[in-house]
Amino acid sequence: MYYIGIDLGGTNIAAGIVDEEGKLVRKGSVPTRAEREADEVIKDMASLCRNLLDEEGLTLSDVAYAGIATPGIADHDTGVVVYANNLRFSNYPLAAKLKEFLGIEKVYIENDANAAAKGEAACGAAKGYKNSVMITLGTGLGGGIIINGEVYSGFNYAGAELGHVVIEVDGLQCTCGRRGCWEAYSSATGLINMTKAKLGETNDTIMHDMVKADGKVSGRTAFDAMRKGDKAGQEVVDKYIYYLAMGIVNMINIFQPEVFVIGGGICNEKNYLTDPLMKIIDKEQYSRDSSKRTQIRIAELGNDAGIIGAAMLGK
Amino acid sequence: MYYIGIDLGGTNIAAGIVDEEGKLVRKGSVPTRAEREADEVIKDMASLCRNLLDEEGLTLSDVAYAGIATPGIADHDTGVVVYANNLRFSNYPLAAKLKEFLGIEKVYIENDANAAAKGEAACGAAKGYKNSVMITLGTGLGGGIIINGEVYSGFNYAGAELGHVVIEVDGLQCTCGRRGCWEAYSSATGLINMTKAKLGETNDTIMHDMVKADGKVSGRTAFDAMRKGDKAGQEVVDKYIYYLAMGIVNMINIFQPEVFVIGGGICNEKNYLTDPLMKIIDKEQYSRDSSKRTQIRIAELGNDAGIIGAAMLGK
Repeated sequence: MYYIGIDLGGTNIAAGIVDEEGKLVRKGSVPTRAEREADEVIKDMASLCRNLLDEEGLTLSDVAYAGIATPGIADHDTGVVVYANNLRFSNYPLAAKLKEFLGIEKVYIENDANAAAKGEAACGAAKGYKNSVMITLGTGLGGGIIINGEVYSGFNYAGAELGHVVIEVDGLQCTCGRRGCWEAYSSATGLINMTKAKLGETNDTIMHDMVKADGKVSGRTAFDAMRKGDKAGQEVVDKYIYYLAMGIVNMINIFQPEVFVIGGGICNEKNYLTDPLMKIIDKEQYSRDSSKRTQIRIAELGNDAGIIGAAMLGK
Repeated sequence: MYYIGIDLGGTNIAAGIVDEEGKLVRKGSVPTRAEREADEVIKDMASLCRNLLDEEGLTLSDVAYAGIATPGIADHDTGVVVYANNLRFSNYPLAAKLKEFLGIEKVYIENDANAAAKGEAACGAAKGYKNSVMITLGTGLGGGIIINGEVYSGFNYAGAELGHVVIEVDGLQCTCGRRGCWEAYSSATGLINMTKAKLGETNDTIMHDMVKADGKVSGRTAFDAMRKGDKAGQEVVDKYIYYLAMGIVNMINIFQPEVFVIGGGICNEKNYLTDPLMKIIDKEQYSRDSSKRTQIRIAELGNDAGIIGAAMLGK
């Protein structure tokens, strides 16, 4: 038996066919063109699924169900997207629409960050563990909570907004309206802003030349400069990792999950990120003297976490 | 059928007999004398339970089980207290010991803050709801998380340390070793410290005279001064409530529970606490535009929350 997983993004609809072991056997994508009527988007989603099945030599009878990872607040009990800003979804019956347009009997939906956490829990870095928490460090800081193998998102499906936990009262302005949210410091955007601030403070850094060559400040600028022995780059990285650690320890003290998973492009820094991070976490966490401590792991599924997580929603 | 609930504190062992409806029909207490061998403490606990049953005209055959709320890390699966600083418990088989000394077949154990949350969820402010979060504002800031009606405390039973979530990076020193923990601002101790800081800043406040009359700064000093029109008292209360709200909104953004319960002596301030608190929470929370928002409620069980929660652990 196979499962269809769909990751509905603001730019692209990505979909894949996943086997019993959670392996992605085929995937593809089409542009979302999010400005359209929602029904038109979902009709393209259904076509994409049909094409993938054809290419793999499968039919709907080989598929147990489809799962959709969607932005916004997804009521996984009714299959209705309560609200998604980018996609003109407002109380939109997403599951029912895909059932209709694809002709499939069972469709599950979940918020995209939650689905990624489910993917890592079912087939990735947190495989085999009952409780895990995942963050994705991208433009924002997305969060997902898995308790007893299932996504936890609160009674209104709007929970797990781990990026919108204030770690510095009256701190940096966040897009959510609050000040001092973890996201404002520890997202890739937060790192870029820290790098820009340092560039404004000092001329004594090779980062100015790097930015000229690259044409922009990126999440890699400070890490690359640090590796070349640049003091200012090191200071940016140290500060970034310190704030990231503060937020992760917060989550450990709350959840004490078996595994805490970190995803997003910054994970490509590997040990340059995780070694100093672990030093702070080991020192700060409430249960630092316990023999049972949360494992910190880098996400394993990369950009496929949403597809695979969606495909695992019914398992 | 009846249930025995026991709240094991550093100073007293309080116990009660609770009926099917969660009503406390009889309670009593004896000194803990925590410096003794753990077995001696539990023998006294068993005697207390026997006496309560006698006084109520009941025998052990009328009792389904006993539950114990204990300080420290309580492994509710094995009945072993992994660690409790005050009570000389280190991998102490608490449930097994009470079974032996009382001659009862079933004993459940749980951390005391978690048990209080269970009590409020089963019989108090969060009754009838699947998911709730409780904080108790006392010397520290205790937390308890109820998910699907059950205590959630992570894979090592050490979670729900909501007081040890940093809300101000590099902020006030906390007893846990971190800086800027929510507990350092929002516990009763935090309020007293804020009041003392204000007294050090200004002579233009009636709080100096109040403290002279009372002999000490208490959690009521600033609230009482505020009600008498004192500007410095108002400033302390405003600041205290602001930090408290920041932490509560953090928890709402993470958990989106049906109910968030606030316990502890500061709740006696009633609307002077909750009205300004709600204004900030309504403005700050991520789901402020949603029709489904977390209800903020004052705890209903007072000091009996631990006993009643312990008595409900098996239900």
